[in-house]
Amino acid sequence: MIKVNPNFLKLPGSYLFAEVSKQVRLYQKQHPEQKVIRLSIGDVTQPLAPSIIQGLQQGVAEMGVKETFQGYPPYEGYEFLRKKIAEFDFQRRGIDIAPNEIFVSSGAKEDTANFQELFDPRAKIAICDPVYPVYLDSNVMAGRTGTFKHGRFEGIVYLDATIENDFMPDLPTEDVDLIYLCFPNNPTGKVATRAELQKWVNYAREKQALLLYDAAYEAYIRDPQIPRSIFELDGAKEVAVEFRSLSKTAGFTGTRMAYTIIPNSVKILDDKGAAHQLNTLWLRRQSTKFNGVAYIIQKGAEAVFTDKGRAELNVLIDDYLENARIIRAGLDAIGITYSGGVNAPYIWFKTPKGLSSWDMFYKLLNECQLAGTPGVGFGKCGEGYMRLTAFGNQEDVKEAVTRLSKLQL
Amino acid sequence: MIKVNPNFLKLPGSYLFAEVSKQVRLYQKQHPEQKVIRLSIGDVTQPLAPSIIQGLQQGVAEMGVKETFQGYPPYEGYEFLRKKIAEFDFQRRGIDIAPNEIFVSSGAKEDTANFQELFDPRAKIAICDPVYPVYLDSNVMAGRTGTFKHGRFEGIVYLDATIENDFMPDLPTEDVDLIYLCFPNNPTGKVATRAELQKWVNYAREKQALLLYDAAYEAYIRDPQIPRSIFELDGAKEVAVEFRSLSKTAGFTGTRMAYTIIPNSVKILDDKGAAHQLNTLWLRRQSTKFNGVAYIIQKGAEAVFTDKGRAELNVLIDDYLENARIIRAGLDAIGITYSGGVNAPYIWFKTPKGLSSWDMFYKLLNECQLAGTPGVGFGKCGEGYMRLTAFGNQEDVKEAVTRLSKLQL
Repeated sequence: MIKVNPNFLKLPGSYLFAEVSKQVRLYQKQHPEQKVIRLSIGDVTQPLAPSIIQGLQQGVAEMGVKETFQGYPPYEGYEFLRKKIAEFDFQRRGIDIAPNEIFVSSGAKEDTANFQELFDPRAKIAICDPVYPVYLDSNVMAGRTGTFKHGRFEGIVYLDATIENDFMPDLPTEDVDLIYLCFPNNPTGKVATRAELQKWVNYAREKQALLLYDAAYEAYIRDPQIPRSIFELDGAKEVAVEFRSLSKTAGFTGTRMAYTIIPNSVKILDDKGAAHQLNTLWLRRQSTKFNGVAYIIQKGAEAVFTDKGRAELNVLIDDYLENARIIRAGLDAIGITYSGGVNAPYIWFKTPKGLSSWDMFYKLLNECQLAGTPGVGFGKCGEGYMRLTAFGNQEDVKEAVTRLSKLQL
Repeated sequence: MIKVNPNFLKLPGSYLFAEVSKQVRLYQKQHPEQKVIRLSIGDVTQPLAPSIIQGLQQGVAEMGVKETFQGYPPYEGYEFLRKKIAEFDFQRRGIDIAPNEIFVSSGAKEDTANFQELFDPRAKIAICDPVYPVYLDSNVMAGRTGTFKHGRFEGIVYLDATIENDFMPDLPTEDVDLIYLCFPNNPTGKVATRAELQKWVNYAREKQALLLYDAAYEAYIRDPQIPRSIFELDGAKEVAVEFRSLSKTAGFTGTRMAYTIIPNSVKILDDKGAAHQLNTLWLRRQSTKFNGVAYIIQKGAEAVFTDKGRAELNVLIDDYLENARIIRAGLDAIGITYSGGVNAPYIWFKTPKGLSSWDMFYKLLNECQLAGTPGVGFGKCGEGYMRLTAFGNQEDVKEAVTRLSKLQL
């Protein structure tokens, strides 16, 4: 008799953002006359840049002609694209990353969820709290945790990010094997300095642990002192993997493309002490369970790694950063404490009067017709916080701030 | 210390088709003056149909304009597309499948690889031999097998498909929980009659097992007596999931889209005996580890489910079926025994003089500059067979047959 994977049943019934969307749709249905402004799921609103559209059009045209038609894409992405990524994102910034260390995929969500498959089922996992739910949920599904008790899964080492440590967790006090980090952080908007990141790299080297570094929001860093890649840190190329995404860099949430960097120098051991190159293991995984990203999409992505394309994208990103500034000013005006929103697209605010995250979610929805994401959905330490995103239309963001100013506190 | 997942190390070093491509590239490099004809990986060669190109162009145009820009797609696919699929593929053929039973994805490879995640790690798996490697390899990676010994993984129930049983395996003699079936079959080209399929459905109902039915090649069925969907069979809607793909139906190998049908009536039990709707579990998996298919691609796919688009596609499929006929005639002419190639795009031939699959692979490559796929790569029962695909250019296929006629047997 076929039975359910019991690990799946440890999870709450629905994915956080699916639940938030459902509640917002429900409210909107009950109040069709009101316009809900969504600063909840981190979804972009600006159209794709002209250079990207041009690349997509070219890709479509080529697929319609026998001579230029493309069949199965390479599992790791087209070389023309990986070369451009290596050059534009890394080499010209003085970071030595080669095209064969880059793996193109359909999304950083997919990659961060799937990457844990490569490791021992008994690996000890460290995850920040609050955290993007995918890192945790994918490990729960893989059976690396016990049950959910008092807001946490047994077997996970949680790294608290709180106002007391300025949202930068302390190093774990027990040995861990795999550490998920994300800077600029989702959900807190915290950015990490060179010194802060170096501590993690040093820890990983000392413990032979691996850092899974999510740099999905690196394009929002405008301060040149703040590292945009983990590979800017000394010694990181032996102990880190970096996930990058075009979702927020180029508005690809609905176009789907990301890439993961696994340096050739990252090697991990098996039970007998033999070393395995991590990117070979990932290629084995990808070639077995994935068939590459559509040619059309990769042609569209090409422009992201050109000066012309990047100039167009910077206009969009400036616009979103301006949204963040508007939201911060709005929160300042009503005396609400927050972090983030500088070099980062997320604003993480403390609910007033000790309201729970979900109480605040419904208060914002009911009083302001404004959707945020309840902080507790990102972890226990997120209780009493809300996340707002800067990815809305600017007119909507201004209207949201006006509505916020009338919030009954 | 971080360690490798030991289950990954049970697999051979590279995925079958990656290995075949590597050997072909190597030969081509050593013999640049010769043109290798690839009838190995099942990759299409005809450009996308005009209606699809038009849909893709419209999708691209909409992504460039603020009013029509699309962000994160629904995890399960856009409703406009799922409605068309339900109507065109099922309802108008008298099969009662609703849009909310359809899940759009980036590929049937991805779905057939990931689907096993939903089930108990101890589930007993039945897999045909020979078989598309993904069903097996994904279960090896998940830890459902022992080691690889004498050409087979311990812990798997293999269902032999041989010339003796006309490539239709017998029902398992021990109880199994999950059965992977694929008709028209990859690699044997076998198609299943209604009576043959009904046996499997009846078995699954009796044993409370689940059928994972891969219908990736259903568009190649021209005989109206042969079922194109498992849901044409009595009682299948409680015990089967069906995978469909646009790769071979619409030339989407490089455009990436597939869909999986999980009827609302499929329920499976947990350890405590409580029933869970299978499509709810899949949505939980997809919403956690997947972020949907690009809007542009779904707009392109829309035309597949219209009379106009399908008429265009049937021309391409007729062309590939004509290739199959040409290959069959070529094998007949040199006295080689084969199955498949009728209502199916694969031809499965017996190597002459008892040659091993890999010996025949190198013989075809060296003597005819022709790439096939060694049958043993699909399983132990595939030893002594080769798979040829009908997806080549027709001129190449004719040339391949001419070269075959000079093979030194």
